[in-house]
Amino acid sequence: MNTIISSTQNKRIKHLLQLQDKSRNRRKESQFVVEGLRETGLALQGGFKLLEVYFCPEFFSENEFKSIPDFEHADAEIIEISSEVYQKLAYRTSTEGVITVFASKENALQKLNFSHNNPLILVAEAPEKPGNIGALLRTADAANVDAVLIANPKTDLYNPNIIRSSVGCVFTNKIAIGTTSEIIKFLQHKNIAIYAAALQASEIYTKIDFTKASAIVVGTEATGLNQEWREAATQNIIIPMNGAIDSMNVSVAAGILIFEAKRQRSFS
Amino acid sequence: MNTIISSTQNKRIKHLLQLQDKSRNRRKESQFVVEGLRETGLALQGGFKLLEVYFCPEFFSENEFKSIPDFEHADAEIIEISSEVYQKLAYRTSTEGVITVFASKENALQKLNFSHNNPLILVAEAPEKPGNIGALLRTADAANVDAVLIANPKTDLYNPNIIRSSVGCVFTNKIAIGTTSEIIKFLQHKNIAIYAAALQASEIYTKIDFTKASAIVVGTEATGLNQEWREAATQNIIIPMNGAIDSMNVSVAAGILIFEAKRQRSFS
Repeated sequence: MNTIISSTQNKRIKHLLQLQDKSRNRRKESQFVVEGLRETGLALQGGFKLLEVYFCPEFFSENEFKSIPDFEHADAEIIEISSEVYQKLAYRTSTEGVITVFASKENALQKLNFSHNNPLILVAEAPEKPGNIGALLRTADAANVDAVLIANPKTDLYNPNIIRSSVGCVFTNKIAIGTTSEIIKFLQHKNIAIYAAALQASEIYTKIDFTKASAIVVGTEATGLNQEWREAATQNIIIPMNGAIDSMNVSVAAGILIFEAKRQRSFS
Repeated sequence: MNTIISSTQNKRIKHLLQLQDKSRNRRKESQFVVEGLRETGLALQGGFKLLEVYFCPEFFSENEFKSIPDFEHADAEIIEISSEVYQKLAYRTSTEGVITVFASKENALQKLNFSHNNPLILVAEAPEKPGNIGALLRTADAANVDAVLIANPKTDLYNPNIIRSSVGCVFTNKIAIGTTSEIIKFLQHKNIAIYAAALQASEIYTKIDFTKASAIVVGTEATGLNQEWREAATQNIIIPMNGAIDSMNVSVAAGILIFEAKRQRSFS
Protein backbone atom coordinates (compact mmCIF):
# COMPACT_ATOMS: atom_id res chain seq x y z
CA MET A 1 0.00 0.00 0.00
CA ASN A 2 1.44 3.38 -1.06
CA THR A 3 1.62 6.39 1.19
CA ILE A 4 -0.94 8.94 -0.09
CA ILE A 5 -0.52 12.71 0.24
CA SER A 6 -3.42 14.99 -0.56
CA SER A 7 -2.47 18.21 1.21
CA THR A 8 -0.15 20.85 -0.25
CA GLN A 9 0.68 21.70 3.39
CA ASN A 10 2.17 18.25 3.97
CA LYS A 11 5.72 18.42 5.35
CA ARG A 12 7.17 16.28 2.58
CA ILE A 13 5.59 18.42 -0.11
CA LYS A 14 6.93 21.59 1.46
CA HIS A 15 10.32 19.91 1.52
CA LEU A 16 10.05 19.08 -2.20
CA LEU A 17 9.11 22.66 -3.07
CA GLN A 18 12.16 23.91 -1.19
CA LEU A 19 14.37 21.42 -3.04
CA GLN A 20 13.00 22.70 -6.36
CA ASP A 21 13.31 26.36 -5.52
CA LYS A 22 16.47 26.66 -3.48
CA SER A 23 19.96 25.85 -4.58
CA ARG A 24 21.01 26.03 -0.92
CA ASN A 25 18.62 23.27 0.07
CA ARG A 26 19.74 21.07 -2.82
CA ARG A 27 23.35 21.51 -1.73
CA LYS A 28 22.69 21.00 1.95
CA GLU A 29 20.74 17.80 1.43
CA SER A 30 22.57 16.53 -1.67
CA GLN A 31 19.23 15.87 -3.31
CA PHE A 32 17.38 17.24 -6.31
CA VAL A 33 13.99 16.96 -7.98
CA VAL A 34 13.27 15.61 -11.47
CA GLU A 35 10.03 15.99 -13.40
CA GLY A 36 8.91 13.50 -16.00
CA LEU A 37 9.33 9.84 -16.83
CA ARG A 38 11.95 10.27 -19.55
CA GLU A 39 14.18 12.47 -17.39
CA THR A 40 13.82 10.05 -14.48
CA GLY A 41 14.93 7.22 -16.78
CA LEU A 42 17.93 9.25 -17.95
CA ALA A 43 18.98 10.03 -14.37
CA LEU A 44 18.81 6.31 -13.51
CA GLN A 45 20.75 5.53 -16.68
CA GLY A 46 23.35 8.11 -15.62
CA GLY A 47 23.87 6.22 -12.36
CA PHE A 48 22.05 8.60 -10.02
CA LYS A 49 20.43 7.03 -6.95
CA LEU A 50 16.63 7.32 -6.97
CA LEU A 51 15.27 8.10 -3.51
CA GLU A 52 11.59 9.00 -3.81
CA VAL A 53 8.89 8.79 -6.46
CA TYR A 54 5.73 10.91 -6.33
CA PHE A 55 3.02 10.06 -8.82
CA CYS A 56 -0.47 11.33 -9.45
CA PRO A 57 -2.84 8.53 -10.52
CA GLU A 58 -5.03 10.97 -12.48
CA PHE A 59 -2.20 11.38 -14.99
CA PHE A 60 0.02 8.39 -14.47
CA SER A 61 -0.46 4.68 -14.06
CA GLU A 62 1.96 2.76 -11.89
CA ASN A 63 2.37 0.32 -14.77
CA GLU A 64 4.31 2.96 -16.69
CA PHE A 65 7.17 2.62 -14.23
CA LYS A 66 7.94 -0.67 -15.96
CA SER A 67 8.98 1.29 -19.05
CA ILE A 68 11.99 2.67 -17.13
CA PRO A 69 14.97 0.33 -17.21
CA ASP A 70 16.39 -0.35 -13.74
CA PHE A 71 13.40 1.24 -12.04
CA GLU A 72 12.50 -1.89 -10.10
CA HIS A 73 16.00 -2.30 -8.76
CA ALA A 74 16.15 1.31 -7.64
CA ASP A 75 14.26 0.47 -4.48
CA ALA A 76 12.85 3.96 -4.02
CA GLU A 77 9.95 4.99 -1.82
CA ILE A 78 6.77 5.42 -3.89
CA ILE A 79 4.23 8.00 -2.80
CA GLU A 80 0.85 8.74 -4.35
CA ILE A 81 -0.16 12.41 -4.54
CA SER A 82 -3.44 14.12 -5.28
CA SER A 83 -3.99 16.17 -8.41
CA GLU A 84 -3.90 19.37 -6.35
CA VAL A 85 -0.53 18.47 -4.84
CA TYR A 86 0.83 17.50 -8.25
CA GLN A 87 -0.21 20.81 -9.82
CA LYS A 88 1.57 22.61 -7.02
CA LEU A 89 4.80 20.69 -7.71
CA ALA A 90 4.78 20.50 -11.51
CA TYR A 91 6.76 23.13 -13.41
CA ARG A 92 5.80 22.13 -16.90
CA THR A 93 2.53 22.58 -18.73
CA SER A 94 2.47 18.95 -19.84
CA THR A 95 0.99 16.77 -17.15
CA GLU A 96 2.97 13.59 -17.00
CA GLY A 97 2.18 12.98 -13.37
CA VAL A 98 5.63 11.97 -12.07
CA ILE A 99 8.06 13.82 -9.82
CA THR A 100 11.15 12.06 -8.48
CA VAL A 101 13.90 12.81 -5.99
CA PHE A 102 17.49 11.73 -6.58
CA ALA A 103 20.73 11.93 -4.62
CA SER A 104 23.21 14.39 -6.17
CA LYS A 105 26.62 13.27 -7.32
CA GLU A 106 29.75 14.80 -5.99
CA ASN A 107 31.13 15.74 -9.43
CA ALA A 108 34.64 15.52 -8.04
CA LEU A 109 37.54 16.19 -10.38
CA GLN A 110 39.68 13.62 -8.58
CA LYS A 111 37.30 10.81 -9.54
CA LEU A 112 37.40 11.64 -13.23
CA ASN A 113 39.28 9.28 -15.49
CA PHE A 114 39.28 8.61 -19.20
CA SER A 115 39.09 5.41 -21.19
CA HIS A 116 41.65 6.55 -23.77
CA ASN A 117 44.72 8.78 -24.10
CA ASN A 118 43.42 11.68 -26.16
CA PRO A 119 40.22 12.83 -24.49
CA LEU A 120 38.22 15.77 -25.83
CA ILE A 121 36.94 17.93 -22.99
CA LEU A 122 34.66 20.94 -22.80
CA VAL A 123 35.37 23.44 -20.02
CA ALA A 124 32.91 26.22 -19.19
CA GLU A 125 34.10 29.05 -16.95
CA ALA A 126 31.45 30.45 -14.60
CA PRO A 127 28.40 29.73 -16.73
CA GLU A 128 25.28 31.37 -15.36
CA LYS A 129 22.20 31.17 -17.57
CA PRO A 130 20.46 27.79 -17.24
CA GLY A 131 19.47 27.91 -20.93
CA ASN A 132 23.11 28.29 -22.01
CA ILE A 133 24.28 25.54 -19.66
CA GLY A 134 21.54 23.28 -21.02
CA ALA A 135 22.57 23.96 -24.62
CA LEU A 136 26.26 23.36 -23.76
CA LEU A 137 25.38 20.01 -22.19
CA ARG A 138 23.26 19.00 -25.19
CA THR A 139 26.15 19.78 -27.56
CA ALA A 140 28.59 17.93 -25.28
CA ASP A 141 26.31 14.89 -25.32
CA ALA A 142 25.88 14.96 -29.11
CA ALA A 143 29.66 15.22 -29.55
CA ASN A 144 30.13 12.50 -26.94
CA VAL A 145 32.95 14.48 -25.32
CA ASP A 146 34.86 12.66 -22.62
CA ALA A 147 33.94 15.15 -19.89
CA VAL A 148 32.43 18.53 -19.19
CA LEU A 149 34.31 20.52 -16.56
CA ILE A 150 32.60 23.47 -14.97
CA ALA A 151 34.73 26.11 -13.26
CA ASN A 152 33.05 28.21 -10.58
CA PRO A 153 29.46 27.52 -11.61
CA LYS A 154 27.07 30.34 -10.74
CA THR A 155 24.08 28.00 -10.82
CA ASP A 156 23.98 24.53 -9.34
CA LEU A 157 23.71 21.74 -11.87
CA TYR A 158 20.46 20.39 -10.48
CA ASN A 159 18.56 23.62 -11.00
CA PRO A 160 15.19 22.58 -12.54
CA ASN A 161 15.80 24.94 -15.48
CA ILE A 162 19.12 23.27 -16.28
CA ILE A 163 17.59 19.80 -16.10
CA ARG A 164 14.83 20.95 -18.44
CA SER A 165 16.93 22.93 -20.92
CA SER A 166 19.52 20.17 -21.11
CA VAL A 167 16.69 17.71 -21.95
CA GLY A 168 18.36 15.33 -19.52
CA CYS A 169 21.93 15.74 -20.85
CA VAL A 170 22.89 16.89 -17.35
CA PHE A 171 22.55 13.18 -16.48
CA THR A 172 24.25 11.63 -19.50
CA ASN A 173 27.47 13.68 -19.53
CA LYS A 174 30.44 13.03 -17.28
CA ILE A 175 30.58 16.30 -15.36
CA ALA A 176 33.10 17.57 -12.82
CA ILE A 177 33.21 20.86 -10.97
CA GLY A 178 36.08 22.83 -9.52
CA THR A 179 37.71 26.22 -9.19
CA THR A 180 39.62 27.59 -12.19
CA SER A 181 42.95 26.71 -10.54
CA GLU A 182 41.87 23.18 -9.70
CA ILE A 183 40.74 22.52 -13.26
CA ILE A 184 43.90 24.01 -14.77
CA LYS A 185 46.03 21.82 -12.47
CA PHE A 186 43.97 18.76 -13.35
CA LEU A 187 44.38 19.35 -17.10
CA GLN A 188 48.11 20.08 -16.82
CA HIS A 189 48.66 17.00 -14.67
CA LYS A 190 46.94 14.83 -17.28
CA ASN A 191 48.86 16.48 -20.14
CA ILE A 192 45.72 17.75 -21.79
CA ALA A 193 46.28 20.81 -24.00
CA ILE A 194 44.25 23.86 -22.99
CA TYR A 195 42.63 25.87 -25.81
CA ALA A 196 41.02 28.99 -24.41
CA ALA A 197 38.51 30.87 -26.54
CA ALA A 198 39.78 34.43 -26.23
CA LEU A 199 40.05 37.56 -28.31
CA GLN A 200 43.58 38.71 -27.56
CA ALA A 201 46.62 37.24 -29.34
CA SER A 202 44.72 34.24 -30.54
CA GLU A 203 45.13 31.63 -33.26
CA ILE A 204 42.23 30.80 -35.59
CA TYR A 205 40.63 27.65 -34.14
CA THR A 206 40.90 25.66 -37.38
CA LYS A 207 44.72 25.89 -37.18
CA ILE A 208 44.79 23.86 -33.96
CA ASP A 209 45.47 20.10 -33.90
CA PHE A 210 42.55 18.85 -31.83
CA THR A 211 43.33 15.18 -32.46
CA LYS A 212 45.57 15.14 -29.38
CA ALA A 213 44.19 15.33 -25.83
CA SER A 214 42.41 18.70 -25.81
CA ALA A 215 40.31 20.85 -23.53
CA ILE A 216 38.24 23.58 -25.18
CA VAL A 217 37.53 26.39 -22.70
CA VAL A 218 34.73 28.91 -23.11
CA GLY A 219 33.87 31.84 -20.85
CA THR A 220 30.75 33.86 -20.34
CA GLU A 221 29.52 36.17 -23.07
CA ALA A 222 29.69 39.22 -20.88
CA THR A 223 33.24 39.02 -19.62
CA GLY A 224 35.00 36.37 -21.73
CA LEU A 225 37.78 34.27 -20.23
CA ASN A 226 39.80 35.62 -17.33
CA GLN A 227 43.57 36.10 -17.31
CA GLU A 228 44.19 32.89 -15.38
CA TRP A 229 42.85 30.86 -18.31
CA ARG A 230 44.54 32.96 -20.96
CA GLU A 231 47.90 32.52 -19.24
CA ALA A 232 47.46 28.80 -18.59
CA ALA A 233 46.38 28.13 -22.17
CA THR A 234 48.54 26.03 -24.46
CA GLN A 235 47.10 28.38 -27.09
CA ASN A 236 44.38 31.01 -27.05
CA ILE A 237 42.01 30.47 -29.95
CA ILE A 238 39.50 32.62 -31.79
CA ILE A 239 36.53 32.13 -34.10
CA PRO A 240 37.00 34.76 -36.80
CA MET A 241 33.97 37.01 -37.04
CA ASN A 242 33.33 39.66 -39.65
CA GLY A 243 29.84 40.98 -39.05
CA ALA A 244 28.54 44.30 -37.80
CA ILE A 245 28.16 43.20 -34.19
CA ASP A 246 30.23 40.02 -33.83
CA SER A 247 28.42 38.66 -30.86
CA MET A 248 27.98 34.94 -30.59
CA ASN A 249 25.99 32.93 -28.09
CA VAL A 250 28.41 31.00 -25.86
CA SER A 251 26.76 27.64 -26.60
CA VAL A 252 26.98 28.31 -30.36
CA ALA A 253 30.68 29.19 -30.05
CA ALA A 254 31.29 26.01 -28.02
CA GLY A 255 29.43 23.96 -30.66
CA ILE A 256 31.58 25.37 -33.47
CA LEU A 257 34.83 24.64 -31.59
CA ILE A 258 33.86 21.14 -30.44
CA PHE A 259 32.65 20.07 -33.87
CA GLU A 260 35.83 21.34 -35.51
CA ALA A 261 37.62 18.96 -33.12
CA LYS A 262 35.14 16.21 -34.07
CA ARG A 263 35.76 16.87 -37.77
CA GLN A 264 39.51 16.52 -37.25
CA ARG A 265 38.87 13.30 -35.33
CA SER A 266 36.68 11.99 -38.19
CA PHE A 267 33.65 11.99 -35.84
CA SER A 268 34.90 8.89 -34.07
CA MET B 1 9.95 72.69 -27.28
CA ASN B 2 9.30 68.96 -26.94
CA THR B 3 5.90 67.42 -26.44
CA ILE B 4 5.75 66.09 -22.84
CA ILE B 5 3.67 63.08 -21.77
CA SER B 6 3.24 62.32 -18.10
CA SER B 7 0.17 60.07 -18.06
CA THR B 8 0.26 56.33 -18.71
CA GLN B 9 -3.29 56.73 -19.98
CA ASN B 10 -2.17 58.98 -22.83
CA LYS B 11 -3.36 57.73 -26.22
CA ARG B 12 0.15 57.59 -27.70
CA ILE B 13 1.45 55.58 -24.77
CA LYS B 14 -1.41 53.11 -25.08
CA HIS B 15 -0.55 52.84 -28.75
CA LEU B 16 3.10 52.13 -27.95
CA LEU B 17 2.16 49.41 -25.46
CA GLN B 18 0.00 47.75 -28.10
CA LEU B 19 2.87 47.90 -30.61
CA GLN B 20 5.14 46.21 -28.07
CA ASP B 21 2.69 43.52 -27.07
CA LYS B 22 0.84 42.63 -30.24
CA SER B 23 2.30 41.20 -33.37
CA ARG B 24 -0.99 42.02 -35.12
CA ASN B 25 -0.62 45.72 -34.37
CA ARG B 26 2.99 45.73 -35.54
CA ARG B 27 1.93 44.13 -38.81
CA LYS B 28 -1.10 46.36 -39.35
CA GLU B 29 0.83 49.55 -38.78
CA SER B 30 4.21 48.43 -40.14
CA GLN B 31 5.88 49.86 -37.07
CA PHE B 32 7.83 48.46 -34.15
CA VAL B 33 9.33 49.58 -30.86
CA VAL B 34 13.01 49.56 -29.93
CA GLU B 35 14.43 50.00 -26.44
CA GLY B 36 17.87 51.43 -25.80
CA LEU B 37 20.35 53.77 -27.45
CA ARG B 38 22.61 51.11 -28.92
CA GLU B 39 19.74 49.20 -30.53
CA THR B 40 18.31 52.45 -31.89
CA GLY B 41 21.69 53.21 -33.45
CA LEU B 42 21.86 49.73 -35.00
CA ALA B 43 18.37 50.08 -36.48
CA LEU B 44 19.36 53.42 -38.04
CA GLN B 45 22.59 51.84 -39.30
CA GLY B 46 20.49 49.03 -40.80
CA GLY B 47 18.53 51.59 -42.83
CA PHE B 48 15.30 51.53 -40.82
CA LYS B 49 13.29 54.76 -40.79
CA LEU B 50 13.07 56.32 -37.31
CA LEU B 51 9.60 57.75 -36.65
CA GLU B 52 9.33 58.65 -32.97
CA VAL B 53 11.68 59.01 -30.01
CA TYR B 54 10.50 58.89 -26.41
CA PHE B 55 13.01 59.81 -23.75
CA CYS B 56 12.86 60.21 -20.02
CA PRO B 57 15.08 63.09 -18.79
CA GLU B 58 15.58 61.41 -15.38
CA PHE B 59 17.68 58.73 -17.10
CA PHE B 60 18.69 60.23 -20.42
CA SER B 61 20.08 63.54 -21.56
CA GLU B 62 19.12 64.80 -25.01
CA ASN B 63 22.82 65.34 -25.65
CA GLU B 64 23.33 61.58 -25.83
CA PHE B 65 21.40 61.51 -29.10
CA LYS B 66 24.51 63.02 -30.67
CA SER B 67 26.33 59.74 -30.06
CA ILE B 68 24.07 58.03 -32.62
CA PRO B 69 25.32 58.42 -36.18
CA ASP B 70 22.63 59.69 -38.54
CA PHE B 71 20.32 60.54 -35.68
CA GLU B 72 20.05 64.20 -36.63
CA HIS B 73 19.17 63.42 -40.21
CA ALA B 74 16.48 60.97 -39.17
CA ASP B 75 14.03 63.80 -38.61
CA ALA B 76 11.93 61.93 -36.05
CA GLU B 77 9.44 63.38 -33.62
CA ILE B 78 10.96 63.70 -30.15
CA ILE B 79 8.71 63.30 -27.12
CA GLU B 80 9.63 63.69 -23.47
CA ILE B 81 8.03 61.21 -21.04
CA SER B 82 7.79 61.11 -17.27
CA SER B 83 9.56 58.48 -15.20
CA GLU B 84 6.24 56.77 -14.51
CA VAL B 85 5.43 56.50 -18.23
CA TYR B 86 8.94 55.23 -18.96
CA GLN B 87 8.73 52.50 -16.33
CA LYS B 88 5.46 51.37 -17.86
CA LEU B 89 7.06 51.09 -21.33
CA ALA B 90 10.50 49.71 -20.47
CA TYR B 91 10.98 45.95 -20.69
CA ARG B 92 14.49 45.77 -19.41
CA THR B 93 15.77 46.19 -15.90
CA SER B 94 18.47 48.62 -17.02
CA THR B 95 17.13 52.14 -17.24
CA GLU B 96 18.56 53.76 -20.31
CA GLY B 97 15.62 56.06 -20.73
CA VAL B 98 15.05 55.78 -24.49
CA ILE B 99 12.25 54.10 -26.44
CA THR B 100 12.01 54.56 -30.20
CA VAL B 101 9.53 53.67 -32.94
CA PHE B 102 10.65 52.60 -36.40
CA ALA B 103 8.93 51.73 -39.66
CA SER B 104 9.19 48.00 -40.47
CA LYS B 105 10.84 46.80 -43.66
CA GLU B 106 9.04 44.66 -46.13
CA ASN B 107 11.66 41.88 -46.11
CA ALA B 108 10.66 40.96 -49.64
CA LEU B 109 12.48 38.09 -51.35
CA GLN B 110 12.18 39.86 -54.71
CA LYS B 111 14.27 42.78 -53.52
CA LEU B 112 17.13 40.59 -52.36
CA ASN B 113 20.30 40.64 -54.42
CA PHE B 114 23.87 39.67 -53.79
CA SER B 115 27.13 41.47 -54.42
CA HIS B 116 28.94 38.33 -55.61
CA ASN B 117 28.28 35.00 -57.31
CA ASN B 118 28.70 32.51 -54.49
CA PRO B 119 26.58 33.78 -51.62
CA LEU B 120 26.31 31.89 -48.35
CA ILE B 121 22.76 31.94 -47.05
CA LEU B 122 21.10 30.73 -43.86
CA VAL B 123 17.49 29.56 -44.16
CA ALA B 124 15.37 28.89 -41.07
CA GLU B 125 12.09 27.02 -41.53
CA ALA B 126 9.27 28.11 -39.22
CA PRO B 127 11.39 29.24 -36.29
CA GLU B 128 9.33 29.97 -33.21
CA LYS B 129 11.29 30.69 -30.03
CA PRO B 130 12.55 34.29 -29.93
CA GLY B 131 15.71 33.16 -28.10
CA ASN B 132 16.59 30.73 -30.91
CA ILE B 133 15.86 33.28 -33.62
CA GLY B 134 18.03 35.80 -31.78
CA ALA B 135 20.93 33.31 -31.53
CA LEU B 136 20.56 32.41 -35.24
CA LEU B 137 20.72 36.08 -36.20
CA ARG B 138 23.78 36.65 -34.00
CA THR B 139 25.59 33.73 -35.65
CA ALA B 140 24.53 34.95 -39.11
CA ASP B 141 25.93 38.39 -38.33
CA ALA B 142 29.22 37.01 -36.98
CA ALA B 143 29.60 34.85 -40.10
CA ASN B 144 28.59 37.81 -42.26
CA VAL B 145 26.31 35.59 -44.35
CA ASP B 146 24.84 37.22 -47.43
CA ALA B 147 21.25 36.80 -46.28
CA VAL B 148 18.99 35.13 -43.75
CA LEU B 149 15.79 33.75 -45.25
CA ILE B 150 12.93 32.89 -42.93
CA ALA B 151 10.25 30.51 -44.17
CA ASN B 152 6.85 30.73 -42.52
CA PRO B 153 7.96 32.55 -39.38
CA LYS B 154 5.80 31.81 -36.35
CA THR B 155 6.88 35.01 -34.63
CA ASP B 156 7.23 38.39 -36.29
CA LEU B 157 10.78 39.69 -36.55
CA TYR B 158 10.08 42.84 -34.57
CA ASN B 159 8.96 40.99 -31.46
CA PRO B 160 10.72 42.76 -28.55
CA ASN B 161 12.20 39.44 -27.39
CA ILE B 162 13.80 38.86 -30.81
CA ILE B 163 15.24 42.38 -30.90
CA ARG B 164 16.67 41.81 -27.43
CA SER B 165 17.97 38.26 -27.88
CA SER B 166 19.52 39.15 -31.25
CA VAL B 167 21.35 42.06 -29.52
CA GLY B 168 20.37 44.14 -32.54
CA CYS B 169 21.45 41.60 -35.21
CA VAL B 170 17.86 41.66 -36.44
CA PHE B 171 18.83 45.08 -37.85
CA THR B 172 22.27 44.27 -39.24
CA ASN B 173 21.43 41.13 -41.23
CA LYS B 174 19.84 41.16 -44.68
CA ILE B 175 16.61 39.31 -43.95
CA ALA B 176 13.84 38.16 -46.29
CA ILE B 177 10.66 36.28 -45.51
CA GLY B 178 8.54 33.95 -47.63
CA THR B 179 6.72 30.66 -47.76
CA THR B 180 8.76 27.47 -48.15
CA SER B 181 7.82 27.26 -51.85
CA GLU B 182 8.71 30.88 -52.54
CA ILE B 183 12.12 30.49 -50.92
CA ILE B 184 12.84 27.21 -52.73
CA LYS B 185 11.91 28.85 -56.07
CA PHE B 186 14.07 31.87 -55.27
CA LEU B 187 17.11 29.70 -54.47
CA GLN B 188 16.63 27.48 -57.53
CA HIS B 189 16.19 30.50 -59.79
CA LYS B 190 19.48 31.96 -58.50
CA ASN B 191 21.28 28.60 -58.84
CA ILE B 192 22.03 28.42 -55.16
CA ALA B 193 22.57 24.87 -53.86
CA ILE B 194 20.18 23.84 -51.08
CA TYR B 195 21.67 21.89 -48.16
CA ALA B 196 18.91 20.78 -45.83
CA ALA B 197 19.83 19.62 -42.33
CA ALA B 198 17.90 16.35 -42.09
CA LEU B 199 18.28 12.93 -40.55
CA GLN B 200 17.18 10.69 -43.40
CA ALA B 201 19.50 9.69 -46.24
CA SER B 202 21.95 12.44 -45.47
CA GLU B 203 25.59 13.19 -46.21
CA ILE B 204 27.95 14.26 -43.42
CA TYR B 205 28.10 18.07 -43.64
CA THR B 206 31.90 18.20 -43.88
CA LYS B 207 31.72 16.30 -47.20
CA ILE B 208 29.85 19.17 -48.88
CA ASP B 209 31.58 21.82 -51.01
CA PHE B 210 30.26 25.00 -49.44
CA THR B 211 32.59 27.26 -51.47
CA LYS B 212 29.95 27.48 -54.22
CA ALA B 213 26.68 29.42 -53.79
CA SER B 214 25.03 27.62 -50.86
CA ALA B 215 21.95 27.85 -48.69
CA ILE B 216 22.05 26.01 -45.36
CA VAL B 217 18.54 25.16 -44.22
CA VAL B 218 17.61 24.34 -40.62
CA GLY B 219 14.21 23.36 -39.26
CA THR B 220 12.72 23.44 -35.81
CA GLU B 221 13.99 21.10 -33.12
CA ALA B 222 10.62 19.51 -32.57
CA THR B 223 9.70 18.52 -36.10
CA GLY B 224 12.88 18.93 -38.19
CA LEU B 225 12.63 19.84 -41.86
CA ASN B 226 9.51 18.98 -43.81
CA GLN B 227 9.36 16.86 -46.94
CA GLU B 228 9.21 19.86 -49.25
CA TRP B 229 12.71 20.91 -48.18
CA ARG B 230 14.10 17.39 -48.17
CA GLU B 231 12.89 16.85 -51.72
CA ALA B 232 14.06 20.23 -53.00
CA ALA B 233 17.49 19.83 -51.44
CA THR B 234 20.58 19.53 -53.63
CA GLN B 235 21.74 17.31 -50.77
CA ASN B 236 20.38 16.55 -47.32
CA ILE B 237 23.12 16.92 -44.74
CA ILE B 238 23.66 15.67 -41.21
CA ILE B 239 25.84 16.52 -38.23
CA PRO B 240 27.00 13.13 -36.92
CA MET B 241 26.07 12.70 -33.28
CA ASN B 242 27.09 9.87 -31.02
CA GLY B 243 25.86 10.70 -27.55
CA ALA B 244 23.15 9.22 -25.37
CA ILE B 245 20.48 11.72 -26.37
CA ASP B 246 21.71 13.40 -29.56
CA SER B 247 19.68 16.51 -29.24
CA MET B 248 21.17 19.76 -30.40
CA ASN B 249 19.86 23.27 -30.08
CA VAL B 250 18.87 24.57 -33.54
CA SER B 251 21.07 27.66 -33.26
CA VAL B 252 24.07 25.53 -32.25
CA ALA B 253 23.48 23.22 -35.25
CA ALA B 254 23.22 26.24 -37.57
CA GLY B 255 26.45 27.66 -36.12
CA ILE B 256 28.33 24.41 -36.74
CA LEU B 257 27.11 24.21 -40.36
CA ILE B 258 27.71 27.87 -41.20
CA PHE B 259 31.20 27.91 -39.73
CA GLU B 260 32.15 24.74 -41.61
CA ALA B 261 31.22 26.72 -44.74
CA LYS B 262 33.28 29.66 -43.45
CA ARG B 263 36.26 27.36 -42.80
CA GLN B 264 36.06 26.08 -46.39
CA ARG B 265 35.86 29.68 -47.59
CA SER B 266 38.94 30.59 -45.48
CA PHE B 267 36.78 32.93 -43.40
CA SER B 268 36.72 35.51 -46.17
